[in-house]
Amino acid sequence: MSNYPKFVEIREEGPREGFQIEAKIYPIEQRAELINLLSETGLTRIQVGSFVSPKYVPQMADTAELFNLIVRKPGVNYTGLWLNKRGFLQALEAKNVDMDPRLLFYTSDEFSKKNNNCTAREMRDSQKDWIELYKANGFEAESAYVMTAFGCNFEGVIPPERVLEEFQWIVDTCKEMNSPLPNLIIADTMGWGNPETVKAMIGAVQKIAPEGRIGMHIHDTRGTGIANVYAAMSMGVDLFETSIAGLGGCPFAGHGHARAAGNVSTEDVVYLCHELGIETGIDLDKLIVAALKVEEIIGAPLMGRVMHSGGLDKYRK
Amino acid sequence: MSNYPKFVEIREEGPREGFQIEAKIYPIEQRAELINLLSETGLTRIQVGSFVSPKYVPQMADTAELFNLIVRKPGVNYTGLWLNKRGFLQALEAKNVDMDPRLLFYTSDEFSKKNNNCTAREMRDSQKDWIELYKANGFEAESAYVMTAFGCNFEGVIPPERVLEEFQWIVDTCKEMNSPLPNLIIADTMGWGNPETVKAMIGAVQKIAPEGRIGMHIHDTRGTGIANVYAAMSMGVDLFETSIAGLGGCPFAGHGHARAAGNVSTEDVVYLCHELGIETGIDLDKLIVAALKVEEIIGAPLMGRVMHSGGLDKYRK
Repeated sequence: MSNYPKFVEIREEGPREGFQIEAKIYPIEQRAELINLLSETGLTRIQVGSFVSPKYVPQMADTAELFNLIVRKPGVNYTGLWLNKRGFLQALEAKNVDMDPRLLFYTSDEFSKKNNNCTAREMRDSQKDWIELYKANGFEAESAYVMTAFGCNFEGVIPPERVLEEFQWIVDTCKEMNSPLPNLIIADTMGWGNPETVKAMIGAVQKIAPEGRIGMHIHDTRGTGIANVYAAMSMGVDLFETSIAGLGGCPFAGHGHARAAGNVSTEDVVYLCHELGIETGIDLDKLIVAALKVEEIIGAPLMGRVMHSGGLDKYRK
Repeated sequence: MSNYPKFVEIREEGPREGFQIEAKIYPIEQRAELINLLSETGLTRIQVGSFVSPKYVPQMADTAELFNLIVRKPGVNYTGLWLNKRGFLQALEAKNVDMDPRLLFYTSDEFSKKNNNCTAREMRDSQKDWIELYKANGFEAESAYVMTAFGCNFEGVIPPERVLEEFQWIVDTCKEMNSPLPNLIIADTMGWGNPETVKAMIGAVQKIAPEGRIGMHIHDTRGTGIANVYAAMSMGVDLFETSIAGLGGCPFAGHGHARAAGNVSTEDVVYLCHELGIETGIDLDKLIVAALKVEEIIGAPLMGRVMHSGGLDKYRK
């Protein structure tokens, strides 16, 4: 009935997703301290910040500087997000950035215009240029994201066919361009998915790319986040992007309320995995220390659960 | 693969579970206002308060008075909790209480001593007296609870056999005493369950009582609450006890942190049901109004999710 992976890879997005949606700009030293704590947990990939317009996202203006402040731990990849060529070149020029070249796909024109200033179709067409740009710089695309894969706060319900069309394009184009298939990331950018729509989508993507590796980027906007992770793992998905303490959200996704926008919380996902007997390589207690540090930095109760209660190992003999 | 019910009954426990764990005693008028808001949502059962020792639980000392303050809505049952004979007689004597006679079973001596001042075995033995007391007053037991069904903060892991032994006793004793089988409530009092242990427990109880109705009382202490509801519904469970805005927790359950103790949130469960096409008879928007009122009363951010983001119907054409 279920097809759990033995090991799940969890990629931390909190330092970017978390701080970009806050109205306040938090001191760079605090963000570095948090990343240093996260580095000690067993996480192998931490998204430090984004190389985007300081005019529109001033919270991320010092990302290049932040990369130089953190204490790099061997075995941990420290990555940054870019949305256009300028951002990519900034990431390339900045010191200490572990590059994770991405392809980005929209299923909604309105969100695409707000986030990338083009239509979804224009965005898709431009991804061939990205593949070439990456190749020209010695990379291959590592992950391909299809965003708002279940619904969009601007355009409403997104028909699954529209999402699958993007994934099919990725499979066909990579073949055509002799590129390895990147991780196929189903992104529930605005928290519309439920366990059944998640399972149906994964099943459909598995049909399109039987050999592909599927990942999920999940927002817990409406309480189904952990249930969606559970459903995805029952279909064999072994890659999740999460956010410490449940921080996060795209500033242009129309969430309305920062606390309602959050990613599914890293420590709650790790707790779930371990309880189901799935390994993550991550130390839950150390993650909780980092989560409580975020709460201290933000200065308000955050939405993660196990950070407040602790895990169950202490009760087990 | 899944066996969802068409309709799920959701019983609201917030006014009792929620306020009993708060250090502060909130004004009776505020609690009445909340219950009046909940009465308008389509909920058919609301637990108003408890008839317990005012010495140990001063938050509930005015429960009888509260029953007289609320505006009773036809079709809604307003219930109260008791843990001993004195409390039962108080509930019986109070005005406007809809009696929901319960049987209570512990799987952990330490929690039993703290909550009921006896061992689990003594508690079980005393339930025959309760069945007789209920009968003598014209009732039959409506629900039977087996508490800390997955683990206990005092005794650690609870072996499933211990839980099933209690359910078997209920089935055998009701047969012996010519009583109808009450609802069989699996209570995860301290938030130890995960979707797989929940499914395994439900399957085992279904074997013991193939004709019985199973319900769940779920605490979302470690983030698995909604995933557990989802897992339970996939096994056909159609009865849940929940708490508006995710309030709640037993004051003697060793939760440590009131915000970590909460029941699974009523509005998040209703949202999940509706998204899965399961009816509840409850208006999500009205529930959100009540949840925001609780947040206003408590004066701190609460853990419910959809109360802050809203449901998805407004986006659907």
